[in-house]
Amino acid sequence: MSERALAQVQESSLSRLIGTLTGSLSALGEVVQEVRPRLDMVEDLIQRHLAASSPAIQEAGAYVFEAGGKRLRPAVLLAVARALGYEGTNDVRYAAAVEIVHTATLVHDDVIDHASVRRGRVTPNSRWGNQFAVLLGDWLYTRAMEIALEDDHILPLRVLSRATTALTEGEILALGLQGRSDITIEQYQQVCELKTAELFAAAASIPACFDQAHARFREPLQTYGRHLGLCFQIIDDLLDVTASEKRLGKPVFSDLREGRLTLPFILALPRLSPQERETVEAVLAGREVDDATPHRLRKALGREGALDAARRIAHDHAEQAAAAISILPASATRQALQGAPLALLDRQF
Amino acid sequence: MSERALAQVQESSLSRLIGTLTGSLSALGEVVQEVRPRLDMVEDLIQRHLAASSPAIQEAGAYVFEAGGKRLRPAVLLAVARALGYEGTNDVRYAAAVEIVHTATLVHDDVIDHASVRRGRVTPNSRWGNQFAVLLGDWLYTRAMEIALEDDHILPLRVLSRATTALTEGEILALGLQGRSDITIEQYQQVCELKTAELFAAAASIPACFDQAHARFREPLQTYGRHLGLCFQIIDDLLDVTASEKRLGKPVFSDLREGRLTLPFILALPRLSPQERETVEAVLAGREVDDATPHRLRKALGREGALDAARRIAHDHAEQAAAAISILPASATRQALQGAPLALLDRQF
Repeated sequence: MSERALAQVQESSLSRLIGTLTGSLSALGEVVQEVRPRLDMVEDLIQRHLAASSPAIQEAGAYVFEAGGKRLRPAVLLAVARALGYEGTNDVRYAAAVEIVHTATLVHDDVIDHASVRRGRVTPNSRWGNQFAVLLGDWLYTRAMEIALEDDHILPLRVLSRATTALTEGEILALGLQGRSDITIEQYQQVCELKTAELFAAAASIPACFDQAHARFREPLQTYGRHLGLCFQIIDDLLDVTASEKRLGKPVFSDLREGRLTLPFILALPRLSPQERETVEAVLAGREVDDATPHRLRKALGREGALDAARRIAHDHAEQAAAAISILPASATRQALQGAPLALLDRQF
Repeated sequence: MSERALAQVQESSLSRLIGTLTGSLSALGEVVQEVRPRLDMVEDLIQRHLAASSPAIQEAGAYVFEAGGKRLRPAVLLAVARALGYEGTNDVRYAAAVEIVHTATLVHDDVIDHASVRRGRVTPNSRWGNQFAVLLGDWLYTRAMEIALEDDHILPLRVLSRATTALTEGEILALGLQGRSDITIEQYQQVCELKTAELFAAAASIPACFDQAHARFREPLQTYGRHLGLCFQIIDDLLDVTASEKRLGKPVFSDLREGRLTLPFILALPRLSPQERETVEAVLAGREVDDATPHRLRKALGREGALDAARRIAHDHAEQAAAAISILPASATRQALQGAPLALLDRQF
């Protein structure tokens, strides 16, 4: 990475930090505020596990967890536990495990995508090499399982383990579709469900596994998490097209550049001009395009109503998520959980 | 990979197959024969899990499990279960999980080492690319955990999970030592314990976790597995120096070529001539050396008694392994288990 690129990364890292402070509240609605003290316990737990590891893992682990993640999955898990009146400590442990699994996938994702920047920072593979990044991801996966295993409950473990397998299956499916411009909405949906929604569904439903009395909430919470995850993924797709590089901390159109056809493009492609389709295919194939291309493609997506259509689909998921948990006992936390997916629609980065 | 290299791989694949048929019995002593029907059940279980996955995983999974592994870890696990009179089916499930974890590490190892050939066959990373191989390894890791989770026992899960974490920690430690010629015996030992011995220790002690009545056997079985693993690793080191390429199915001195200083070299280095040390460092650094180098270095190791010394250390571990389980009830299976590490000393590939 050149000096100039590094300087840009550092600059965008600063703006990202400011963005995190002002942005996460609106992104997560009131969910984060509801569980702030327990989120701090999750951070402490992760830090303690890192501190007990070897120097190389300590350094890299501190780096990847400092990277300003939104902690959305642990916040959801903790908020559900609170909404269910859970009073033990398994929520903190599982929230940490879920966030570590998520982090592991990001580390391996960056290896797979040859990504050099994420969230405005140099990626682990770019900083320490692919070899170390593969092992760091492995360590995070297995360590997450060990943290979850500290308790005797087998059911939440199964939920977490199944979601992790689904995640890798989604990644494999996505890799098979990489660079292709003929992806159907069904294929897109399947990848999103496996890659993103399953872990959200696990985060939302795990607290209902701690107590047999909550068994009837498991399925509605799975449904909540799944729709929340799909809403989140579609907004992520949209931001890649609409957000500015500075706010996002990564180049816009990075999905397309890395060979991933996202929902707005899938919706628009049949109606784009032959020339526009060619441009999309060129970006997907990793060919160099001129600087005006992102702006031109963004206009085309807007013209064909694809941005609005994707937004409507995300909105539907947000409403389905909120409806799924109306079965939970009424409380401010339940309300915050129901508001979270709708708040995601206003996410700016 | 060139046509010629591929042809060589296929030829060596044939000789490997013959080697497997004639060699594994001597390598594993009577352990494999003792548990042959249950080993077949392990294969069936692995095949069933692969069959239930996506086409890409089915193909790659079939490929990596066909690759003629010695199934040493599952054989040990099944034999210990038999020696303890265990009559359930958890032994088969955990034997499959342990073998899948082992296979996952091989898949990621080959990515890390940029290896193109293992056991006489093209590696998954060479065949399907690094990206897919990273995800295949992830899938194998998490699937192994899911298989183990089918039962309600939490204790064997913890043993397996801890061993898997140790394994990744060993890999990370090894990566940090890669290319270095100043490795101490203590560092070597630590890497071997984490990378190899912990999974053998898990395989040997997991059957004692199925029944509280066997709790007192857990530690002796851990000790057995650990020494068996260390013995196995040292023999592996020796074979890399002494075995011919045809029998091993991989280039000789591949450890050194991939930057790993093995026990015979660690023992010999202080006594080698400056010129010989320079050659070792050149190979470690991945520099091209003339065809006579392996033969010359092998002679130097022999001259300095390093091969015999490494063999003696392996022999000590074999004896300590056998002694550790004299506490088990006397039986033909216990005898076979005690004989296995000594039989490893005669391993030819």
